[in-house]
Amino acid sequence: MRAEIITIGDELLIGQVVDTNSAWMAERLNECGIELFQVTSVHDNREHIIAALDEAFGRADIVLTTGGLGPTKDDITKHVLCEYFGTHLIEDMRVRAHIHELYKERPDVLNRLTATQWLVPECAEILPNRVGSAPLMIFHKGEKLLASMPGVPYEMKIAMDEQILPYIQQSVFSNQQSVILHRTLQVTGIPESSLAILLEDYENEMPSDLHLAYLPKDGIIRLRLSSYGGMTEKEIDAWFGRLKELTKDYLIADTDEPLEVIVGKLLKEKGATIATAESCTGGKLASLLNKHAGSSAFYWGSVVSYDNSVKEQVLNVPAEMIKTHGVVSEEVVRIMAESVRKLIGTDFGIATSGIAGPSGGSEEKPVGTVWMAWATPKGTYAECFHLGKLREQITDRACMKALIGLLKILKNE
Amino acid sequence: MRAEIITIGDELLIGQVVDTNSAWMAERLNECGIELFQVTSVHDNREHIIAALDEAFGRADIVLTTGGLGPTKDDITKHVLCEYFGTHLIEDMRVRAHIHELYKERPDVLNRLTATQWLVPECAEILPNRVGSAPLMIFHKGEKLLASMPGVPYEMKIAMDEQILPYIQQSVFSNQQSVILHRTLQVTGIPESSLAILLEDYENEMPSDLHLAYLPKDGIIRLRLSSYGGMTEKEIDAWFGRLKELTKDYLIADTDEPLEVIVGKLLKEKGATIATAESCTGGKLASLLNKHAGSSAFYWGSVVSYDNSVKEQVLNVPAEMIKTHGVVSEEVVRIMAESVRKLIGTDFGIATSGIAGPSGGSEEKPVGTVWMAWATPKGTYAECFHLGKLREQITDRACMKALIGLLKILKNE
Repeated sequence: MRAEIITIGDELLIGQVVDTNSAWMAERLNECGIELFQVTSVHDNREHIIAALDEAFGRADIVLTTGGLGPTKDDITKHVLCEYFGTHLIEDMRVRAHIHELYKERPDVLNRLTATQWLVPECAEILPNRVGSAPLMIFHKGEKLLASMPGVPYEMKIAMDEQILPYIQQSVFSNQQSVILHRTLQVTGIPESSLAILLEDYENEMPSDLHLAYLPKDGIIRLRLSSYGGMTEKEIDAWFGRLKELTKDYLIADTDEPLEVIVGKLLKEKGATIATAESCTGGKLASLLNKHAGSSAFYWGSVVSYDNSVKEQVLNVPAEMIKTHGVVSEEVVRIMAESVRKLIGTDFGIATSGIAGPSGGSEEKPVGTVWMAWATPKGTYAECFHLGKLREQITDRACMKALIGLLKILKNE
Repeated sequence: MRAEIITIGDELLIGQVVDTNSAWMAERLNECGIELFQVTSVHDNREHIIAALDEAFGRADIVLTTGGLGPTKDDITKHVLCEYFGTHLIEDMRVRAHIHELYKERPDVLNRLTATQWLVPECAEILPNRVGSAPLMIFHKGEKLLASMPGVPYEMKIAMDEQILPYIQQSVFSNQQSVILHRTLQVTGIPESSLAILLEDYENEMPSDLHLAYLPKDGIIRLRLSSYGGMTEKEIDAWFGRLKELTKDYLIADTDEPLEVIVGKLLKEKGATIATAESCTGGKLASLLNKHAGSSAFYWGSVVSYDNSVKEQVLNVPAEMIKTHGVVSEEVVRIMAESVRKLIGTDFGIATSGIAGPSGGSEEKPVGTVWMAWATPKGTYAECFHLGKLREQITDRACMKALIGLLKILKNE
């Protein structure tokens, strides 16, 4: 069972919008045993959309389109789909009622353009869009099907989970699915090429329908084993077990969960709490720690001490110490971590201070130098890292280093 | 002059990686007067890559590929390009020297797999990759060209800016470029459909080669005027001027710059400084304010008061007040904003407190309710918003509301 995604919108092709939808949809499709074969981004242009539809139907059984369903003139997807499937628009009273309900407290939205949203292609099956005005549309082409949904990420996600995926699973395709299996682990502290040499014999022994991929990012390499229908859960787990054994000196996780989720679970298990004192990471680490629901159980708060006055007055770093050692130093991060732990009253405190650039670097402490400290009930640890040259890369990698450090401390306790 | 991007990698099609490269590349191509026609994401698979190359060359003059250039077995792009262009690999001594220089302090990386990185296709022009081991490759196919570069975002960005784009501009294509012009403004406080009705006459009068697009996100609608070769700067500016006049009641910016950049510039101009006190936004607002280089001129620090104890002990919110009014209330955010302004010693203080969900909502204060306050030298303002139902959406929108509020205060002063 193969699917393709066509994302429709000029904004994707002039760089105004990053396509985050496709990765999210890809993950869900894989979980349902549907292989995503290709993603294609096209303009809001009749000929271009039609060509992409033809090509996608040539390769795949299911075509998912996102975008181009707004009430404004630049959105043409519905009209092009009408033409492609040889149908025309009719009024849908259920959609009309839904839109009236949706905007009952905002009568200004119920204008004549919004009214075009309850015009739907006659041959399409219409599924409700619980959180928006553009209806979801399913078209059939022989044994194949096309689902059209909005490009707004949160509307698309609810549409996929509540309507499109259940529809696909319950429809004609339900008995044809193959089992796609993935297993992912995460390692750190070894170059990608050295890891590949370590795993050379293992890779040579792998059956041809098992695939190993290396995904390096922010100092962590994710190793993914994939089987597209040729293997049972037990078989892939056996191969995964060997992979874990071979990489055990570098292993930090044996799931694909983001590191902040893994750390959060461990903190919750231990009933431990955490606070951060951030200079170069500027709140990014805090934001990661409370990104997911339920984080209030372990994450209590942070002080972002971007300016030195905040380090001195809120985190009690002596001005003299900053003068002597510099603000990016072991001495300063230790005090920051210990102070925030005490100030907020948590079990752990993490501090970061570094040079994110582009300016501020020196011969001795070039851009990318980051000092980090972890204050724990058993003492304070500090470490210095060199994390690259670009601002965003440095702060992203610093957050990962902070989480890796905390993970090691939590596991060793 | 038309370009296409082919992003190569299984990770994109199983959802392990979001493709942020394409949007970045799209923007750069547009700035150089090169239209990006299509983006295609394909598997690390020989047949799939070859089919995508054939299709892309059928539509475009320039094909840019990213990914699949690592030293590990799953990366096959270089080999497939060799086959596609009928050539074979040879040793490149310059690349070899570069890689030795790059890793001179990390001899463990200089293993036999890394050594495969200085094998390059004989017919390709090789451009240096300043920050990585995979060389950049340019292939010619008649009048058309293909550039292959790594998928690691920061390597790709440096490759594009320093090597690939200058090469394209100085090559055979230099005289054929058309002028692509974009103008973007940002509005808030009006539904998309009402905005379209407001602009109906304007859109009907627009010449056929001028295009207007609506891009709603997080409570802001970006309106983009585009001309693909049919208009001069002066002409599009005249149309843009009319658009600004028509939308002036809702206008918050007449550039496409992110709101935090616009606010940062205004703060710098005024020599003003800012701090934040964040509950539901959890450091995201801080992180936005210091995302860009030079932010230390105006952004000083934050207190993330996720737990109530932090609100009480660090931000001096009376426990009694939380008990009486609740933590998501006008009273509490006012004290938070004023306290953080005083604690950090800045001109402005912004506070957020809301229910990001999924739990914690009530009849009176459902998930999505966010109270916000702006403490200024002239007094404190507070406002309540209802920002949706999903955690990430609520916190993203709250950050935008905080910046819009600050922008209005800065403009009215």
